[in-house]
Amino acid sequence: MALKVYADRMSQPSRAVIIFCKINGIDFEEVRIDLPKRQHLTPEFREINPMRQIPAIVDGRFKLSESHAILIYLACVFPGVADHWYPADLFKRAKIHSVLDWHHLNLRRGSATYVLNSVLAPALGLPLNPTAAAEGEKILSASLAKIESVWLKGSGRFLLGSSQPSIADLSLVCEIMQLEMADEKDRDRILNPHKRVLKWIDDTKNATRPHFDEVHSTLYKVKEKLKQLRSDGIIETGSIKKTAPVSKM
Amino acid sequence: MALKVYADRMSQPSRAVIIFCKINGIDFEEVRIDLPKRQHLTPEFREINPMRQIPAIVDGRFKLSESHAILIYLACVFPGVADHWYPADLFKRAKIHSVLDWHHLNLRRGSATYVLNSVLAPALGLPLNPTAAAEGEKILSASLAKIESVWLKGSGRFLLGSSQPSIADLSLVCEIMQLEMADEKDRDRILNPHKRVLKWIDDTKNATRPHFDEVHSTLYKVKEKLKQLRSDGIIETGSIKKTAPVSKM
Repeated sequence: MALKVYADRMSQPSRAVIIFCKINGIDFEEVRIDLPKRQHLTPEFREINPMRQIPAIVDGRFKLSESHAILIYLACVFPGVADHWYPADLFKRAKIHSVLDWHHLNLRRGSATYVLNSVLAPALGLPLNPTAAAEGEKILSASLAKIESVWLKGSGRFLLGSSQPSIADLSLVCEIMQLEMADEKDRDRILNPHKRVLKWIDDTKNATRPHFDEVHSTLYKVKEKLKQLRSDGIIETGSIKKTAPVSKM
Repeated sequence: MALKVYADRMSQPSRAVIIFCKINGIDFEEVRIDLPKRQHLTPEFREINPMRQIPAIVDGRFKLSESHAILIYLACVFPGVADHWYPADLFKRAKIHSVLDWHHLNLRRGSATYVLNSVLAPALGLPLNPTAAAEGEKILSASLAKIESVWLKGSGRFLLGSSQPSIADLSLVCEIMQLEMADEKDRDRILNPHKRVLKWIDDTKNATRPHFDEVHSTLYKVKEKLKQLRSDGIIETGSIKKTAPVSKM
């Protein structure tokens, strides 16, 4: 029985897991859990992951949630995964754990808070919150500055000075990709001060093509839809008018 | 050269690392980084951890931050560590990663937000924020309910049905111990609905004595000091009067 990956491609950790499987030739079945339709809250999905979050996997009798734990598990149990994704070397591995742990309350918290409160909230039945968006942007910008000055220091193209990507590069870049949904001016304001981050995003995309773009195609479509709605004046930067058909994004 | 652990015992992840070293007989030197004195922001500490967070370790030439990454590293490189702390079994290990990953944006986020905004803020030069405290309590209570219904389900005394504690038990229980600083009524309101959690906290304390109490003695002293200030009417539940000598706690 193939590995099952329960995911929604609009969720950044879901995309990281799907790209990882595809690039490493892991045979898997993708089971769509539609977040706006609240499919993660159904009794059926509760049997898969009682924490009611995606991504989650079922591998035979084994169930697992949390994308970082899933990426580590897959790197360890599937023999075809190249060492650079999750090195056997204890010191390199420890540094990757450190980046992934840091991610939760820094880059992820900042990015998710910003995108939720400046763009996504209405699609989830919540109000936009400019104050929360500003707080999210502050954490996000500080996190991007830290990535640039600490983990992208040195000569390697990837985090921790590596010449090839690890699961940390994949996880963090998928997170930053959520900003594709923001207004272009806002995205540029947040990302453009960090030239090394921009280059690293490109390098990670290039190292994981064509899977990176294929798995992000849903996000790119939503980006275009939002761009059109903004250009038509139906939604504004940082606020969506009540008439916008956001629930159908 | 012995392992150096940079820590402040008022910090919950610092305590988890210190207890882990003591209980496993790891030879280490504890270097106090006084958070209220902002010693984590000095240029000297920046050389140890550019993320300016504690705990951090230096093991020979190797530097590492983030408590979960540190606990995993120590469990892997020090030969005397019993398997139950971080099992070699890939499936058990994956589940521990899952708990630790979940911790960041759930239990830690809820607990830290609640304690900061209802008790600690003035000691750090920040205002108390009852709205943020209420939001923190909501996340914290939901997290405690999940721990009880998901990870403490089954017959084992510890998380994931284990009969002995892992690094996840230690990390999560140290987090919950921050509530010792809250008013007793508040702590009871938050913790008492979760009887299995209360028993698990006791079981984890018992399994790690005498180190657990010794490392928490600083916290217990602050708890008594706060209790006295509350009883003298100098600080109130959820708010500290301007005259309170909180910066000297």
